[in-house]
Amino acid sequence: MADRIVLAHGGGGSKMLDLIERRFVPAYGGKALAALGDGAVLAGRPGRIAFATDSFVVRPYFFPGGDIGELAVNGTVNDVAMCGARPAFLSVGMILEEGLPLADLDRISASIARAARRAGVEIATGDTKVVERGKGDGIYINTSGIGWIADGVDLAPLRIRAGDAVILSGPIGEHGIAVLSVREGISFRTPVESDTMPLVDAAQALLAEPGAVRMMRDPTRGGLSATLNEIARAARLGIRIIEECVPVSEGVRAACEILGLDPFAIANEGRLVAIVDPERADALVDRLRRVEGCEAATVIGQVFEDRRSLVTVSTPYGGERVLDLSSGEPLPRIC
Amino acid sequence: MADRIVLAHGGGGSKMLDLIERRFVPAYGGKALAALGDGAVLAGRPGRIAFATDSFVVRPYFFPGGDIGELAVNGTVNDVAMCGARPAFLSVGMILEEGLPLADLDRISASIARAARRAGVEIATGDTKVVERGKGDGIYINTSGIGWIADGVDLAPLRIRAGDAVILSGPIGEHGIAVLSVREGISFRTPVESDTMPLVDAAQALLAEPGAVRMMRDPTRGGLSATLNEIARAARLGIRIIEECVPVSEGVRAACEILGLDPFAIANEGRLVAIVDPERADALVDRLRRVEGCEAATVIGQVFEDRRSLVTVSTPYGGERVLDLSSGEPLPRIC
Repeated sequence: MADRIVLAHGGGGSKMLDLIERRFVPAYGGKALAALGDGAVLAGRPGRIAFATDSFVVRPYFFPGGDIGELAVNGTVNDVAMCGARPAFLSVGMILEEGLPLADLDRISASIARAARRAGVEIATGDTKVVERGKGDGIYINTSGIGWIADGVDLAPLRIRAGDAVILSGPIGEHGIAVLSVREGISFRTPVESDTMPLVDAAQALLAEPGAVRMMRDPTRGGLSATLNEIARAARLGIRIIEECVPVSEGVRAACEILGLDPFAIANEGRLVAIVDPERADALVDRLRRVEGCEAATVIGQVFEDRRSLVTVSTPYGGERVLDLSSGEPLPRIC
Repeated sequence: MADRIVLAHGGGGSKMLDLIERRFVPAYGGKALAALGDGAVLAGRPGRIAFATDSFVVRPYFFPGGDIGELAVNGTVNDVAMCGARPAFLSVGMILEEGLPLADLDRISASIARAARRAGVEIATGDTKVVERGKGDGIYINTSGIGWIADGVDLAPLRIRAGDAVILSGPIGEHGIAVLSVREGISFRTPVESDTMPLVDAAQALLAEPGAVRMMRDPTRGGLSATLNEIARAARLGIRIIEECVPVSEGVRAACEILGLDPFAIANEGRLVAIVDPERADALVDRLRRVEGCEAATVIGQVFEDRRSLVTVSTPYGGERVLDLSSGEPLPRIC
């Protein structure tokens, strides 16, 4: 039992302190975390603050191309980045199930550290709870994040106008299909890996073109379809996507065909959608393509007047289908 | 099934949007939450930022004197307040188990709203995940919080000096015993209710005496014993407590005797410990006693030179016992 999580690891006593001081702080802790306060005291900065939170319950917690630790960092970093902020500090709250192998926890902690370094954020504060066997599923992680928004950045759905261009930063559906493949024991000829990555550089590249971006979102749960529908609703406008412009990898396409899934409805964890000034769309795509992981960035559609806020996809054969907000992600516990 | 949580409530589609727009936003959402962004954009403020996070897994989620919603707000509000900040914004991340009655969720949401109002914080952003039956326990809640620290406030264990006074804001052990009593179906002649409450006013009352407070902590998991040990370790000094000065209610005392528990090791959720300038301790106690819920505030002991960082309790009969950092809270899932 010495190499597994026990209830006392969440008890606030010496076993919990051990976990924090010998595992979490050395693995991913910055100066604030190492101070072991009730919270972190951080230097203030000028500008508005972006504040985001996300809990991660992905099953299994190791999957092709990533794990729950990396996902938890990137997920919240990306939510902060989509607000137009440069993410600065993250909290990590863990809910561990009794019996979790400490080796798995260490591997996840190392992954948190790596992802935080890549995204340029500091893990400033944390919390650990342990639940009995059968009341969790190994590990759930909440991360919350804060970042500062530079003056002049103004992102809001109500800034969107008919005629605006829709930019996508890369191929869709990879995270969802990667998780599904390992969960269901399916293997595809072309293996699919999660696209989990921080979108900090991508967002900052777009914001470097002053005033050109109306709003940004990362299409996670519910996929591109859910995100475009949310944007259309909030803007009270329609969106028309050209299907052949949307990059989909061979592996994702094959998997979706076999499983009867729509790549537009599958979760991504390292892609962004931006609604932008159409006259500057090409310049923005150029900027984006120079960012690692966004080489396939492209314009995929346009905003148009529509009081019903419809999102449609034009197919290569001249047809058009409506992308509706389905009742939920087809795959549970994808993130 | 229409009155229970299903997996699709966590799927990012229309069912999740329903949950957020029809339940969470009306119950406890401020302007930022209602905007339904990936995160909240908040006005910056001058001063340092305190940032804290806490996950709550208390079993059962309704207990005498409170519930998991109220606890989740107060817990993080208090961590921010103990940093010397006035808490301003909170995030709420929920992990719901498939099958959770929506009536329970609504009751918890109302409780979150009430607690946030009382503490003077806005729920600015949130997240909802759903896990399968048997992979959770009804509801787990993470809250993270931010607040700003006024200029001149300087709290740190290394400011503590031998001779400093130890102040406690009220009777100990009530939260832990309240949860235990309902969990184990034990009833005591004197019913015990959780002490969960926000410590914002208490902390601000102490900080109104400039420079008098060295540091503050709320003794939650592991009780007063764990907190005093953490303080002593961080300050590299000893702490001596006078047992008869520590307020313990009749109900807690009786419960601890029957169950063989030490009230010093039981969790509190609405008490604070402050290490203060001894010359101003009486003035601080006076200030504290005027705050609702802190009427029994009192000096309970003193800091002394001790390189081993011992925490001891002097008993009424002239004896002395060492309060050590036990391996963990005697009661699992107390918060």
